Amino acid sequence: MTTTNNNSVPKVSKVDVLIIGAGPAGLMAATGLTKYGINNIRIIDKRSTKIYTGQADGLNPRTLEIFQALGIGSEIAHEMNTFGEVCHWEPNASGEIKRTARSSVSPPGISKFQSSCLHQGRIEEHLMNNIARWSMSARPTNDGSNQSPTSKKVIVERAVCPDSIHLPPITSSPLSDKDEDQITLTLRHLSESEAKPAQFLPSTKDGLFRSNVFDSEASDLDSNPNGLPAEGSLETVQCKFVIGTDGARSWTRSALGYKLVGDSLNYFWGVLDGVPATDFPDIRGVSLIHSAENGSLMIIPRERNLVRLYIQLPQPIPGQRPNRDDITPEKLLQVTNSIIAPYTLRMPNVDWYTCYEIGQRLADSWHWNNRVFIAGDACHTHSPKAGQGMNTSMADTFNLAWKLAHVLQKKADLKILETYGVERSKLAQELITFDQKLSSLFSGKPAKDNEDSNGISLKEFHQTIEKSKHFISGTSVNYDSNILIFKGDDINSIIKSKPELAKHTPIGTRLLSNRVVCLSDANVSETLDLIPADGKWKVLIFPGDIQANEDCKIKLDQLSDFLANDKTSPIQRFTPVGQDTDSVIDCITIVSSSRTALELTQFHQILRPLQGPHRFGSYKKIFTDEESYHEGHGHAYEKYGINPNVGCIIVARPDQHVSLILDLNDHLALSSFFEQFMISPHFTPSS
Amino acid sequence: MTTTNNNSVPKVSKVDVLIIGAGPAGLMAATGLTKYGINNIRIIDKRSTKIYTGQADGLNPRTLEIFQALGIGSEIAHEMNTFGEVCHWEPNASGEIKRTARSSVSPPGISKFQSSCLHQGRIEEHLMNNIARWSMSARPTNDGSNQSPTSKKVIVERAVCPDSIHLPPITSSPLSDKDEDQITLTLRHLSESEAKPAQFLPSTKDGLFRSNVFDSEASDLDSNPNGLPAEGSLETVQCKFVIGTDGARSWTRSALGYKLVGDSLNYFWGVLDGVPATDFPDIRGVSLIHSAENGSLMIIPRERNLVRLYIQLPQPIPGQRPNRDDITPEKLLQVTNSIIAPYTLRMPNVDWYTCYEIGQRLADSWHWNNRVFIAGDACHTHSPKAGQGMNTSMADTFNLAWKLAHVLQKKADLKILETYGVERSKLAQELITFDQKLSSLFSGKPAKDNEDSNGISLKEFHQTIEKSKHFISGTSVNYDSNILIFKGDDINSIIKSKPELAKHTPIGTRLLSNRVVCLSDANVSETLDLIPADGKWKVLIFPGDIQANEDCKIKLDQLSDFLANDKTSPIQRFTPVGQDTDSVIDCITIVSSSRTALELTQFHQILRPLQGPHRFGSYKKIFTDEESYHEGHGHAYEKYGINPNVGCIIVARPDQHVSLILDLNDHLALSSFFEQFMISPHFTPSS
Repeated sequence: MTTTNNNSVPKVSKVDVLIIGAGPAGLMAATGLTKYGINNIRIIDKRSTKIYTGQADGLNPRTLEIFQALGIGSEIAHEMNTFGEVCHWEPNASGEIKRTARSSVSPPGISKFQSSCLHQGRIEEHLMNNIARWSMSARPTNDGSNQSPTSKKVIVERAVCPDSIHLPPITSSPLSDKDEDQITLTLRHLSESEAKPAQFLPSTKDGLFRSNVFDSEASDLDSNPNGLPAEGSLETVQCKFVIGTDGARSWTRSALGYKLVGDSLNYFWGVLDGVPATDFPDIRGVSLIHSAENGSLMIIPRERNLVRLYIQLPQPIPGQRPNRDDITPEKLLQVTNSIIAPYTLRMPNVDWYTCYEIGQRLADSWHWNNRVFIAGDACHTHSPKAGQGMNTSMADTFNLAWKLAHVLQKKADLKILETYGVERSKLAQELITFDQKLSSLFSGKPAKDNEDSNGISLKEFHQTIEKSKHFISGTSVNYDSNILIFKGDDINSIIKSKPELAKHTPIGTRLLSNRVVCLSDANVSETLDLIPADGKWKVLIFPGDIQANEDCKIKLDQLSDFLANDKTSPIQRFTPVGQDTDSVIDCITIVSSSRTALELTQFHQILRPLQGPHRFGSYKKIFTDEESYHEGHGHAYEKYGINPNVGCIIVARPDQHVSLILDLNDHLALSSFFEQFMISPHFTPSS
Repeated sequence: MTTTNNNSVPKVSKVDVLIIGAGPAGLMAATGLTKYGINNIRIIDKRSTKIYTGQADGLNPRTLEIFQALGIGSEIAHEMNTFGEVCHWEPNASGEIKRTARSSVSPPGISKFQSSCLHQGRIEEHLMNNIARWSMSARPTNDGSNQSPTSKKVIVERAVCPDSIHLPPITSSPLSDKDEDQITLTLRHLSESEAKPAQFLPSTKDGLFRSNVFDSEASDLDSNPNGLPAEGSLETVQCKFVIGTDGARSWTRSALGYKLVGDSLNYFWGVLDGVPATDFPDIRGVSLIHSAENGSLMIIPRERNLVRLYIQLPQPIPGQRPNRDDITPEKLLQVTNSIIAPYTLRMPNVDWYTCYEIGQRLADSWHWNNRVFIAGDACHTHSPKAGQGMNTSMADTFNLAWKLAHVLQKKADLKILETYGVERSKLAQELITFDQKLSSLFSGKPAKDNEDSNGISLKEFHQTIEKSKHFISGTSVNYDSNILIFKGDDINSIIKSKPELAKHTPIGTRLLSNRVVCLSDANVSETLDLIPADGKWKVLIFPGDIQANEDCKIKLDQLSDFLANDKTSPIQRFTPVGQDTDSVIDCITIVSSSRTALELTQFHQILRPLQGPHRFGSYKKIFTDEESYHEGHGHAYEKYGINPNVGCIIVARPDQHVSLILDLNDHLALSSFFEQFMISPHFTPSS
């Protein structure tokens, strides 16, 4: 592709993963990798500072679950604003807007979190702090050694952008350390003025930043400066893997020759952030307002008394764009007031504003040879109003990070990387389809009556909102069958997944969280908190009522014996010598009997393994499904749809998605599942 | 008293408050003061570093509520271990220990928090970080200016101890700035070796630290080194107020000539911290074990897999003390194993250990002239097993801090300071009485049967534990009537408190927290979270069902009109010119009607005041008592015992304790209550 500059003497470094772009997607990739123990990585960003104003802010329940899994849930919860309610406002017969409906933003019961928001800059700050922290603590790998024996603090390298990429032969081994097998990039170190984000430049004194309507502002960011680089400003980096999270105008995507495919809808919207003074009653709710004649408005109540307004701009003649002069805070507030009349809204201090044209675009490929990946806005762009951008982007790399860590730690075969693009591109397509429908309905002028075929149906708009709540929450994401997901739809497989054993637990989705009681200390845990982002596979054993049902008891004993003693058991096969038995595959047992009828010692040691150098017992592995002292009954068996007289095994991936559901005594399927893609650190005679 | 050394040239500084001793009590004093905007303070400690091992660890629900009010609840919750269950183990007929009962540690329903523990060193760390943070943000005072216009970062000054104190005439004014009205102390700056805590000294290589049984170790800490101080090691500080939180051997208490009064019970216990390897089933519960012949043991499950053992030592001959050689980890573990036999317990790494003699002592006075206060261990010592020491000490200074801030900010009269000693010494006496009973029962040998009058009754022990749970939780603390507490027991007062209007809300206790729904955004709040430690008085208005009951509606309107427009209204009287109307007295309205029947604009602006320089509306002031989308119904009216057809006003102090309960239309009593002790910043013709 492009060549390096001859004037400079590039220094050469080697990393496992180079991440290009330190927005939410890139930072989540680095967060996951460092959390899982991979710290020979670099993350670069062409801007010299992080984002301080504007940009994304929506956090859906699934993203909050991911933050919780990463151990940063409470610090983010401390700052964010939770959306309590969504209100519809629509014109009555006289054309005056009235509140026509209100409901919860997230459907009750789908998560312990609700849709919320916090400014992208704060999210990035939290992620960066944790990347730095985690990268300093080396973790053991599959071969018992430390992947990164030396602590190496990973921080975002700013004012650095890629200049060229050289791909190795397609047949090269990604895990090889040879120079010729590496992906080689030239990086350019920018000067302060080259790297300053548009938000700080005099040319953006009017506040427009990252608008997709007016190219001039964005070009400050998205094109490299002309002219030869100064001597010493180039370097060479060799990588096993590259993650391009460099936004809608992704350099990485372009360098690979891939494109965003899609179109615009010719609807233009403005965005305005600030603290409003208003008599509009639902300014602290999510308000969806269709006015009779003046367009639509969406109100998003934010942290620190801020409010974001999405303001539909007057429709230009098809093919034309709005007038540049219409995009000022004053004009945006004028439109806002025309939409919410007779209510009024002032915003003495505007925090940020921009405008955008609604469009939906999808990358035509998500990776090169499963070694260079693109993620986030580089793969999917759409309108911001459903708050899906930052969420979906972070979910992309949360999906990718554990797989890359598994491969780099030689725990799993390269082929698991293929699932990244397959799983995430399907979701992105669903998002695009949803956004097209929602945007059209929200930007459309309401029909005056049933006869008015020029207007959109508000009834259809309501129904679309209602039906899409689960999707918007991010908790309905359901990956299709692949090497990591067995839905029981392949009857020829020896891996016989039985969805009917946990009939409210769709295989492919992330596990629903339910409250259970810890046998050893009577404290209540959420089941999702038992599947933190520690890079381990979770075998959730639901043996049923082992107190009342002898068959359940026997099956649990047989399963324990298999896990502990059979040489084909995944714990025996994949746990490195000298490591705790729960270091790769972690068993959590949830019985439906009461804890007062049980003693910890009844359970096989494999289910409550000895841990650490002093071999103390682990006490947070056995739980019961019953009334707790302070937090009621979680009804976990009922909510998962598990019969307490039958039980089952649920295998959850490190990202909390359900891989398969098995009979308690289907030891073979359990072994076979992991055998497909996991790599045993032990000598295997047959291989 | 003592004189300063002539060889040194003391520098002289002036502070509002000097805090002597940076343990939990002293740090809580500084936390409160800085949070309320007082940062012209100093906090000194004779030790050169904070505590790293051992010491206190119990956190009762009330302390966790206080942390929550201070805004540091989630960071502490992140690290602590919650006690899920308390188990009794007692000898059966054959003398073998068996589990005889289990129950919750905190009674359900009394708090949203449960008893927990976290090492004192971590608590101190969190408090210190927040003191530094808060002291940097100056806050407005009653006269509209900033008390501390310059940011001044308050940090613990270590290796500094008081050397002498000079008290001004008893008639001097505490708020005067004149030199002769100040309390003058000489402070000595210690060398590194003088200040090193015993935990780090070679002489304590055996780990015994702060034992009250063997004096030698403690003397390293508690006596000043002999010899003349080096030149420049003394300084003079002039203070308006002094808080002595310098422990059981308080220098401050001694300097005032006060004493701890009480006695020892001749029971000796060892304490051992570490990560155990054991087959004892309830090692992660709070276990209270009476063995037949070998004494008693208490197990406290701690954070980071640690466990604390309280081990009863063999009873020496009365008047004698245990053998020094018996106090080793090995010996303590040997006794432990004899108590829990046939179970066994190993502890490969001992984190810390000590021993203590059970005794209960109370200070004979808590203050000098309400200008020098003592608090915490300086006022009350007792056995550590109920985990009350750190909790009670922090609660002492949480009680004192807002009162001192009010006085220093000229919001309130000096006389409110009298309530500190009165309120806290009563509680301390209750604690001492409780501890004597509990310690005797726990240290006593169990009676073999009903005829065995030499043994203690296990039934009585169980009942004592059960009855004391609310007390141990810290949530039952109930202050008697005083200038800040009106229980309605004085029929001659014009302040007619009516406890029957909120019959489950005892006046004098901290308000019970209940969930309510925010009118403006449908989010759920805990009522205690509406009374954060912001130094404001809270007027909680429960107008009842204003939708269905016209009388309730009228009374709310009349009350709003009074608050907003009557010159005798406490808001008019005590809010400085130019400040938001909720800056001193903050009204929170909780109606029993459904929010769907209400609009924010129905409520008078005084109940949802305009705030900040841009005068935006405050949206977190009006709440309803109804079903929420995600968290059920809080039943606040029912739980407070308020009739929705009658309503009431509950006035809560800045420390969340209930001052009085009034009829909705008793405007006179509301005015009169504040008029007793608050100082109006406005010109008052009659004064």
